[in-house]
Amino acid sequence: MAIVVQKFGGTSVGDTAKIKNVAKAVIREYRNGNKVVAVVSAMGKTTDYLVKLAKEISPNPCHREMDMLLSSGEQVSISLLAMAIQEAGCPCVSMLASQIGIITENVHSRARIVDIKTDKIQKYLDDNKIVVAAGFQGITLEGEITTLGRGGSDTSAVAIAAALKAQRCDIYSDVDAIYTADPRMVPLASRLGEVSYGEMLELARVGAKVLHPRSVETAKQFNMPLRLRSSFNIEDTGTLVVGDDEMELHRPVTGIAADLKQVRIAILRVPDKPGVAAKIFGTLSENNISVDMIIQSLEEDQYNNIAFTVNESDLTNAISVLERVRQEIEASEIVVDNNIAKVSLVGAGMVDRPGIAAGMFNALADAGINIKMISTSEIKISCLVAKEKAENALKSIHTKFGLDAKELQSIDATE
Amino acid sequence: MAIVVQKFGGTSVGDTAKIKNVAKAVIREYRNGNKVVAVVSAMGKTTDYLVKLAKEISPNPCHREMDMLLSSGEQVSISLLAMAIQEAGCPCVSMLASQIGIITENVHSRARIVDIKTDKIQKYLDDNKIVVAAGFQGITLEGEITTLGRGGSDTSAVAIAAALKAQRCDIYSDVDAIYTADPRMVPLASRLGEVSYGEMLELARVGAKVLHPRSVETAKQFNMPLRLRSSFNIEDTGTLVVGDDEMELHRPVTGIAADLKQVRIAILRVPDKPGVAAKIFGTLSENNISVDMIIQSLEEDQYNNIAFTVNESDLTNAISVLERVRQEIEASEIVVDNNIAKVSLVGAGMVDRPGIAAGMFNALADAGINIKMISTSEIKISCLVAKEKAENALKSIHTKFGLDAKELQSIDATE
Repeated sequence: MAIVVQKFGGTSVGDTAKIKNVAKAVIREYRNGNKVVAVVSAMGKTTDYLVKLAKEISPNPCHREMDMLLSSGEQVSISLLAMAIQEAGCPCVSMLASQIGIITENVHSRARIVDIKTDKIQKYLDDNKIVVAAGFQGITLEGEITTLGRGGSDTSAVAIAAALKAQRCDIYSDVDAIYTADPRMVPLASRLGEVSYGEMLELARVGAKVLHPRSVETAKQFNMPLRLRSSFNIEDTGTLVVGDDEMELHRPVTGIAADLKQVRIAILRVPDKPGVAAKIFGTLSENNISVDMIIQSLEEDQYNNIAFTVNESDLTNAISVLERVRQEIEASEIVVDNNIAKVSLVGAGMVDRPGIAAGMFNALADAGINIKMISTSEIKISCLVAKEKAENALKSIHTKFGLDAKELQSIDATE
Repeated sequence: MAIVVQKFGGTSVGDTAKIKNVAKAVIREYRNGNKVVAVVSAMGKTTDYLVKLAKEISPNPCHREMDMLLSSGEQVSISLLAMAIQEAGCPCVSMLASQIGIITENVHSRARIVDIKTDKIQKYLDDNKIVVAAGFQGITLEGEITTLGRGGSDTSAVAIAAALKAQRCDIYSDVDAIYTADPRMVPLASRLGEVSYGEMLELARVGAKVLHPRSVETAKQFNMPLRLRSSFNIEDTGTLVVGDDEMELHRPVTGIAADLKQVRIAILRVPDKPGVAAKIFGTLSENNISVDMIIQSLEEDQYNNIAFTVNESDLTNAISVLERVRQEIEASEIVVDNNIAKVSLVGAGMVDRPGIAAGMFNALADAGINIKMISTSEIKISCLVAKEKAENALKSIHTKFGLDAKELQSIDATE
């Protein structure tokens, strides 16, 4: 019998009615003759509530105690889901990460999984029991409770699936599939039946908030097929995320996305000396500030302008550490542009096809949208545009590349 | 350095402001030069909320999953209390029962502790850390999570104190001391500075909801001094509960209490044959129904009436199993009296003094209160009276035995 791992996020288990729904999705796989492990996150707003309690006590609570606090959330959701499955007449048992043996490194709040024991889960599965496992949490070899940080439950599910050599890992959420663009911004966005790990990673990185990059990386590493599907419509098969070799076709353009949460910082008149860029980005990295697009332009003899984007939540912190760096490297000024959106186009087939970048720039020009900054990778092109132009930019590019729903089928067929 | 174990109940950690208060009580002991272990329950209404969620899913959820669910409650309170202690500048670490090694028998929802490992706690104490331990929960040798049932956190605290050979165990709650009667019913109730384990046990059994009998039994077994004190007034030394030998005086009457949550069940015209009582009370016991007072009276030749009290929450269940028994033993009728209160008088010195029972009956007679049923033990006398007479009964007995606040001192002095 095949093992299927299913993962249900916080929204899917947001209240007891939703938990009963999830129980149906689990039992459906079980009645189909599979051995089933369901991995769940904490119920909807639980984590926010627990963080609020902690903040009432300490502005900066210790990571170890935060992990102890937050990991109580999954303990509630796994036991309730197990009860719902039992109530529907199927044998079921819930398991904490400490009971399974999801071993992580000895780091709090963002630990990485180093090993997953399978003997106890396997024993329950052999006894024909459904196993409901706590996502997001882990335990160190010394018995300390850890959490995996953002996207942790997706990563737990994929890692458990890999350890058990499952047939596949289904990620259920309130999103029913991967689309060529966010349907809220581009109403004609088309569903994708299949994407590669690489495409999914780039889409996740440029703003498609569907699967956390870490879980996709883990799936890619173990070549574990992921199926993204809706917890509210369990008949829908959603989108399959697989290895490049298993892809039936390589689209030049898989999808587009906009990230509205970035700001651009420019450091003007930076003296053109070795080590200056290392100084700037080294300092940002030491302060745990992630930098996205970076452009260095030669302004005039001996001076460069260096521009890059950061998350708007990191802006205040970034400016305060950069002001010290600016004085040290004797640059003239720091300029912030809040009015930006990063519009990106992703496609694994892009690499063999010239003209994709030009097509994107043309689409923006035709729509009268000015490009503030450009950056490219092997399977991605990103442009910064004014924030209020983002939606229009997405629609223009979407149409330009024939991604609009009514046309997509014919494009797929001719590739 | 002496080890002091402190226990804080759900009301004491009901919100983050109260948790900060508890942190002060813990730090006070620590700054006094003691090694401190604080044992805590789940925050105030958490358990009720979790039970409500479970009931939304299943009318009768499996005990294993209930234990998994409920034990999340202490995980929240221990981490928050540890944060509050750290925020006040003291080194502190929280520990789950599974991390400590509070080993219980393999029974869910009402497990008994069989062993407590001390090596990890002791190591933290040796490192000068305050340890915040989860009450109420345990773990089996197989790694299953269990809970200890009613009064579980008190029992955890006493058992941890015994295992660590602590100097004493302080039980903090919203009650500041043991009184000769419930001050809400008897305004002239007097505080007791000291009571024996035996007196405390009887008081707990007859309705004084201060310490759970199980924790007192454990304290008695290990001769661990308990101090009952207020979490809202940490200067108050409350009431010390110690062994009989350590008692300075043996009062004829320690205190009185009323239990308003009992109902009386009478089975009428029970044929007088061997094994009939065993059948009745064996069946109740198999169905996990606790029986309190039992009276068998010879009604007429060959027939008895058998009456006893049970908790009102067990009534429906009791009636349904008893109806089958009644038919089997060919008794005529089952009669229920809801309008009862059990009024009890407790005192370790009672055994040497005749006339205590007569005094109690006189007090009730003087107040015009009819006695429905009587039962006695070595250090306790209980009478059933009509529910609406309970308060008046308590006041009459309290006055009769000179327990009223202004007189108590002189009584003590003359013993």
